Amino acid sequence: MFRLFKRSSSKAGLSPGSLTYVGDKHEEKLEVELIRYSTEEYTEESIENIDDVFPIENTPSIKWINVVGLHDPSTIEAIGKNLDIHSLVLEDILNPLQRPKVEDLDGCLFLIIKSIHSEESTGEYNIDQVSLLIGVNFVISFQEKNRGLFDDLKRRIKNGKERIRNRGADYLAYSIMDIIVDNYFTELEKLGNQIEEVEDTIIKSPGTESLDSIYKFKRELILIRKSIFPVRNVIHRIDRVGGDLFQESTDIYLSDLSDHILQIIDIIDTFRDIVASMMDIYLSSVSNRMNEVMKTLTIFASIFIPLTFIAGIYGMNFDYMPELKWHWGYFGFWGVVLTLLVSMLIYFKKKKWF
Amino acid sequence: MFRLFKRSSSKAGLSPGSLTYVGDKHEEKLEVELIRYSTEEYTEESIENIDDVFPIENTPSIKWINVVGLHDPSTIEAIGKNLDIHSLVLEDILNPLQRPKVEDLDGCLFLIIKSIHSEESTGEYNIDQVSLLIGVNFVISFQEKNRGLFDDLKRRIKNGKERIRNRGADYLAYSIMDIIVDNYFTELEKLGNQIEEVEDTIIKSPGTESLDSIYKFKRELILIRKSIFPVRNVIHRIDRVGGDLFQESTDIYLSDLSDHILQIIDIIDTFRDIVASMMDIYLSSVSNRMNEVMKTLTIFASIFIPLTFIAGIYGMNFDYMPELKWHWGYFGFWGVVLTLLVSMLIYFKKKKWF
Amino acid sequence: MFRLFKRSSSKAGLSPGSLTYVGDKHEEKLEVELIRYSTEEYTEESIENIDDVFPIENTPSIKWINVVGLHDPSTIEAIGKNLDIHSLVLEDILNPLQRPKVEDLDGCLFLIIKSIHSEESTGEYNIDQVSLLIGVNFVISFQEKNRGLFDDLKRRIKNGKERIRNRGADYLAYSIMDIIVDNYFTELEKLGNQIEEVEDTIIKSPGTESLDSIYKFKRELILIRKSIFPVRNVIHRIDRVGGDLFQESTDIYLSDLSDHILQIIDIIDTFRDIVASMMDIYLSSVSNRMNEVMKTLTIFASIFIPLTFIAGIYGMNFDYMPELKWHWGYFGFWGVVLTLLVSMLIYFKKKKWF
Amino acid sequence: MFRLFKRSSSKAGLSPGSLTYVGDKHEEKLEVELIRYSTEEYTEESIENIDDVFPIENTPSIKWINVVGLHDPSTIEAIGKNLDIHSLVLEDILNPLQRPKVEDLDGCLFLIIKSIHSEESTGEYNIDQVSLLIGVNFVISFQEKNRGLFDDLKRRIKNGKERIRNRGADYLAYSIMDIIVDNYFTELEKLGNQIEEVEDTIIKSPGTESLDSIYKFKRELILIRKSIFPVRNVIHRIDRVGGDLFQESTDIYLSDLSDHILQIIDIIDTFRDIVASMMDIYLSSVSNRMNEVMKTLTIFASIFIPLTFIAGIYGMNFDYMPELKWHWGYFGFWGVVLTLLVSMLIYFKKKKWF
Amino acid sequence: MFRLFKRSSSKAGLSPGSLTYVGDKHEEKLEVELIRYSTEEYTEESIENIDDVFPIENTPSIKWINVVGLHDPSTIEAIGKNLDIHSLVLEDILNPLQRPKVEDLDGCLFLIIKSIHSEESTGEYNIDQVSLLIGVNFVISFQEKNRGLFDDLKRRIKNGKERIRNRGADYLAYSIMDIIVDNYFTELEKLGNQIEEVEDTIIKSPGTESLDSIYKFKRELILIRKSIFPVRNVIHRIDRVGGDLFQESTDIYLSDLSDHILQIIDIIDTFRDIVASMMDIYLSSVSNRMNEVMKTLTIFASIFIPLTFIAGIYGMNFDYMPELKWHWGYFGFWGVVLTLLVSMLIYFKKKKWF
Repeated sequence: MFRLFKRSSSKAGLSPGSLTYVGDKHEEKLEVELIRYSTEEYTEESIENIDDVFPIENTPSIKWINVVGLHDPSTIEAIGKNLDIHSLVLEDILNPLQRPKVEDLDGCLFLIIKSIHSEESTGEYNIDQVSLLIGVNFVISFQEKNRGLFDDLKRRIKNGKERIRNRGADYLAYSIMDIIVDNYFTELEKLGNQIEEVEDTIIKSPGTESLDSIYKFKRELILIRKSIFPVRNVIHRIDRVGGDLFQESTDIYLSDLSDHILQIIDIIDTFRDIVASMMDIYLSSVSNRMNEVMKTLTIFASIFIPLTFIAGIYGMNFDYMPELKWHWGYFGFWGVVLTLLVSMLIYFKKKKWF
Repeated sequence: MFRLFKRSSSKAGLSPGSLTYVGDKHEEKLEVELIRYSTEEYTEESIENIDDVFPIENTPSIKWINVVGLHDPSTIEAIGKNLDIHSLVLEDILNPLQRPKVEDLDGCLFLIIKSIHSEESTGEYNIDQVSLLIGVNFVISFQEKNRGLFDDLKRRIKNGKERIRNRGADYLAYSIMDIIVDNYFTELEKLGNQIEEVEDTIIKSPGTESLDSIYKFKRELILIRKSIFPVRNVIHRIDRVGGDLFQESTDIYLSDLSDHILQIIDIIDTFRDIVASMMDIYLSSVSNRMNEVMKTLTIFASIFIPLTFIAGIYGMNFDYMPELKWHWGYFGFWGVVLTLLVSMLIYFKKKKWF
Repeated sequence: MFRLFKRSSSKAGLSPGSLTYVGDKHEEKLEVELIRYSTEEYTEESIENIDDVFPIENTPSIKWINVVGLHDPSTIEAIGKNLDIHSLVLEDILNPLQRPKVEDLDGCLFLIIKSIHSEESTGEYNIDQVSLLIGVNFVISFQEKNRGLFDDLKRRIKNGKERIRNRGADYLAYSIMDIIVDNYFTELEKLGNQIEEVEDTIIKSPGTESLDSIYKFKRELILIRKSIFPVRNVIHRIDRVGGDLFQESTDIYLSDLSDHILQIIDIIDTFRDIVASMMDIYLSSVSNRMNEVMKTLTIFASIFIPLTFIAGIYGMNFDYMPELKWHWGYFGFWGVVLTLLVSMLIYFKKKKWF
Repeated sequence: MFRLFKRSSSKAGLSPGSLTYVGDKHEEKLEVELIRYSTEEYTEESIENIDDVFPIENTPSIKWINVVGLHDPSTIEAIGKNLDIHSLVLEDILNPLQRPKVEDLDGCLFLIIKSIHSEESTGEYNIDQVSLLIGVNFVISFQEKNRGLFDDLKRRIKNGKERIRNRGADYLAYSIMDIIVDNYFTELEKLGNQIEEVEDTIIKSPGTESLDSIYKFKRELILIRKSIFPVRNVIHRIDRVGGDLFQESTDIYLSDLSDHILQIIDIIDTFRDIVASMMDIYLSSVSNRMNEVMKTLTIFASIFIPLTFIAGIYGMNFDYMPELKWHWGYFGFWGVVLTLLVSMLIYFKKKKWF
Repeated sequence: MFRLFKRSSSKAGLSPGSLTYVGDKHEEKLEVELIRYSTEEYTEESIENIDDVFPIENTPSIKWINVVGLHDPSTIEAIGKNLDIHSLVLEDILNPLQRPKVEDLDGCLFLIIKSIHSEESTGEYNIDQVSLLIGVNFVISFQEKNRGLFDDLKRRIKNGKERIRNRGADYLAYSIMDIIVDNYFTELEKLGNQIEEVEDTIIKSPGTESLDSIYKFKRELILIRKSIFPVRNVIHRIDRVGGDLFQESTDIYLSDLSDHILQIIDIIDTFRDIVASMMDIYLSSVSNRMNEVMKTLTIFASIFIPLTFIAGIYGMNFDYMPELKWHWGYFGFWGVVLTLLVSMLIYFKKKKWF
């Protein structure tokens, strides 16, 4: 399950703009990868010293710098210094609590978006923050962890047959967002399958596992929705905010992306409605089953408690109890018992209790 | 029941604009039908090679190309090439997850709308996607399955007495949308009848079947609403987006359509409110019935457990128990028992427990 | 109770604009009444042939044509032909499912509004559609049934002392709407009284009748709200849409009407909130009563089951049971029983179970 | 408790603008009070004949005419005639169902606002309507009942040291509204205290009284909110509508008033949320207590029913029952009973049932 | 827990603008602290006579006057007189019920914001009001209590290495707001941790403590949200309202602050959704546990009540009961008992009741 709140309070009291990584601490080394491509060429290298990359605008080829790991603020600071970016923006990159947003930074565009990833082993969902700095001929992406999200995209660029090799940095930025949004579909499909599985068992045999699942779904959908909902607005605003950087030919792609986000939000809302209905059904099923239990008890008790009373009567030791002397007394007793038994059964049958 | 999520994840990782059919795979052959009509003439033919139809604007007669089946992207691709349509649009045609929308494609209008169809045999609802490409003198419609939705419309065109033979492609497009929206009424009426049936039994004898029905209604209404709600906006925007293609004389028809969609949404919302109330009533009824069960149990147990205790007393074997010797002891016992019984019954009667 | 859905599906598949009455079939004859008045004169006649009324604009007196019954489309068609009205509008008059709306028809104004009427005998609510065609010197009103709604208005016109005799057709139209809206108050007051009656019994003795009533209220309020809510917008728009037909001096009346509709919607929403609270209270009361039942059972069972066990012990037939021989054994038994009984009662009293 | 609906249906069917008082009938005499003040002088008199007051604009001093009691339409009619006010406005003054609103009447401003008053003795809330007619140098206020609401204000004016003596009629109108809004705070504070009292008992010992209180709170908050919410809009619009009458120096007071209304609405919404939470808690507490009851029953029954069975066995009269002959049989029986008893108690203890 | 309503009703009836402190009465002395700094110098002194500080604009250094304690209106009045501030504004400073807001006071800016503080010892939340008066070279802050909120900020200013020493009063005002907003994160993190703790226990062992916690969370979130939500608007409006006072270089800081407030509101809403889900889960868990209890009871009762009846039969004293004479009668009895016992256990096992 997600943690509700990732920000460590160590941040409070610091001056605004001080760079401290506020996410979980990881042991992994911070990795910086530089992918450089144009229509003709493609190179991919691992960068040790981030300053080597700058100045970044000196060659016409498109450069994609993929920074994985945020626990070492010095790299981000170096990038900030080279591109002359305000420390508050750098602080946002380091703070995984940021809402998705887009900002114009005079010469480049700053974008925060969330990616979703479900752990194969535990089924738990993670929400990662992906920050993008988009310039005329470069995109710098920041992620906390490498979850292989960009592998397909890298392959497509390397491959060289795709449209992307002939397009600018704006199309690269779009492609990164597209792959993140496509991944929403994949993750939501998994979630949808889980929901449908639980749906099937919920009426038949509602148990505490179903309850746990419903709660897990609710919680995940609350958090996923919170992460994805503002993305809609971000994509709508890219065009307005990043007018110069985004070419007109990329507009149709952005509007396609915008459609996808609307679909995603539709799906999430549908899931939420359905999970809410499941909760209602669960509660009703539990009530129904309680009803069954109570009926069983009531039938047994209502039949046998009076009969036991009758047996108790003839177990009394009064000196004078005429029935006890009758030869057919015992059989008479059985007659009464069976008559009562049968009439009670008919009564409960009529009430449709079994 | 609908599947929550139709998109196969095989799509993820592909470059944007790659044409892959992401719906369910069907065995049926893809059918293309060409209906050509003007005030005087009407022809109807089945097309084997889609390229034969183009160039489409060379004759003044109205052409309606009805493509049924989406599993073969090559036909869609051919149409796209002939009309010079962006691959992202073609991708939308193939993706049954699309939200209803309208787009201006420079020279023709692209429209996605959803049709609803309930399976006669199982009572399950299907939501199909109908995409329309509307040009000056043609309409191309794309559907996944042929459910006979357009049969009435074809008959009316063939018939020749109707207004439609004298009007342009815009009126044809309107007529297609109108027939889809009219079908919403038909399907919602069926649903309304089902709801009223369940409504009748829900207070009288609430059972798990009612619960299943309510859940089915809720789920269907969630999904139908999601499909129809954006249609309202689509129709509002047709006029603005498709200004040139839609003649002014068709405006009154579109505004009539818009009214119908508002009615449909009203009806769906009313159904949702009513189904939500039904759920409340169901829960209350279950509680009420549990109450009945508990009262039965309590009456039986509260009366007979004390009586059994009394019988138990005189079944004890103490050497000295004066009552046992009394000649009228046994009848005295009966007196006590009957007194208790009657007073208990009066007590419960007073409490209105039966 | 209302039927959820009045439209017969026979309509689907017809060409748009075909006139078919889609409401319930009635046996009654369609009645057309013509009221003609000016400051000086007043006449009232029953019209057999609708064409006699036209051309309608030839005299300066105000004409009110009241059509009751919609099952015969030919009359409506004749009116449409005489006034040159689009068939889609005529279709709206015949379709009782229409949302309230106002439309400018080039020279006259078309208005749909809903009237509410509760059946005296059954307490069931009916929602009728009233359509108005408003011209320079005439108003044509269409209703499905004559429920005496307009009787007061006719009397006031006939009476001649009222302001209405000196005003134009716009004031007549306003008066018709005013009488319909005034009737909302009357009907809602009846409903309010019913709600307050149920409110009183709901805490004291919640039963299934209360549940039925709450459900009935909910359902009625859902449907009434749906019918009245759009009227607000209609009245707001009359001024804008019907600029020429409505004189400035009538504006203050329309804005008064608009206030009344807002009050009506306020009242409906208040009723809905209150009925929703009543449902909560009902559910709690049912739980409370179940609690009472359970407590009764628990007290009886917890006291007498252990006592029965003790009596059972001394009913055993072991050869050697010393207590049985004691002279005061039986009284000792009673001592134990009474001690237990009293301490249990004190225990339950302390727990405030009775 | 409020009555849901105050309008008597006797109104329906009357011509719009006919003056009939539609509130409850009161026996008290209608009182008209005239307060006349300027910086130097202050007079206060009771008016018998309303016509004596007019023409009202002949002296520079500020005049406040306070009309208490609405059951005699003739006074209102006289005022209307003197000030040349439309009969629909007069009708609004007489109709206590009006929503708060502000209207420009050519030369004076018409304002409807609601005051809240809780009956000391019964704790019931009353919502009264206060109508104001504001002119250049006068304010006429209309109330149904005198609840002492204006006493403080009159004292402040008489006192003469306050700012009000130097300001115009707009400030007087503001002061009247301010005193009404201040009274909202007082009344809501009382309600808040009541809510906190019930809150304290609701978890500890939820009973039907708590349920009654919650329902009472809900109902009152629904009705109070309905009365106060539109006031926000009224005050916002005063400036726009009453531009000429309200001096610029009064604007800051109006905006302060507007702040107060926002606070009031905040408080009401907070109360509603809290009362809704209380309902949830109540329901849960009832469930919890039922659980306690059931556990008690189950523990007693599960322990003693099996033991009674065992005692029943050795109460049987079979000729051959070896245990009965054993010398230690009876004590063996007790051994078994105690063993069972203790293990059951341990079992239930482990399950944390007590 | 917060008190719902802090305003003492003693305020009602006073003339608008009369200065009375309406919060809780405190014994502590009112403290006024003056911090004066520029790039070079820093002084900090305690002010006894507030008039000494004025005229405040005579030196270029930035002055921060921090007033702690609001129970002595004379200090606030003195400040108001010196800065020529309307008495209604001063009244707002003294009234802790104010909504967050920003106002332009001709030459200085007036800001109300709320700070949140959880009592270490009791875990109770307090909402304090912080009012700011912002001028060209000064900021005056008003708080009811000193909770050490500004200590970090003072240290940073004193420290002298921070950006703040080179910036104007607008940056100081921003820093004060930033420290308050940062504190929201800290407090919400604490709340988040508490929520997650309760979340863990709620499914496993739901008890009344969990219920108390959920209610406490709900109530706190309602009140915190109410306090923080309007802050969003306040910060948005600062730029528009305080155009002259706020330099352009501070804009980026304000927009960062605005982002943080959006995050805070997101977090609060997420918490509310999650707490609402927890309530649902709690209710279901209680139902589930009741089910368990009922099953235990039903199993015991359904097995042993019939067996006791059988034992009762052979405890009867009829003269002629053939079974009693059979040599194997007793063992036959045991056979029947065990058979019944085992088949009942199998039956309940099959029903998955244990």
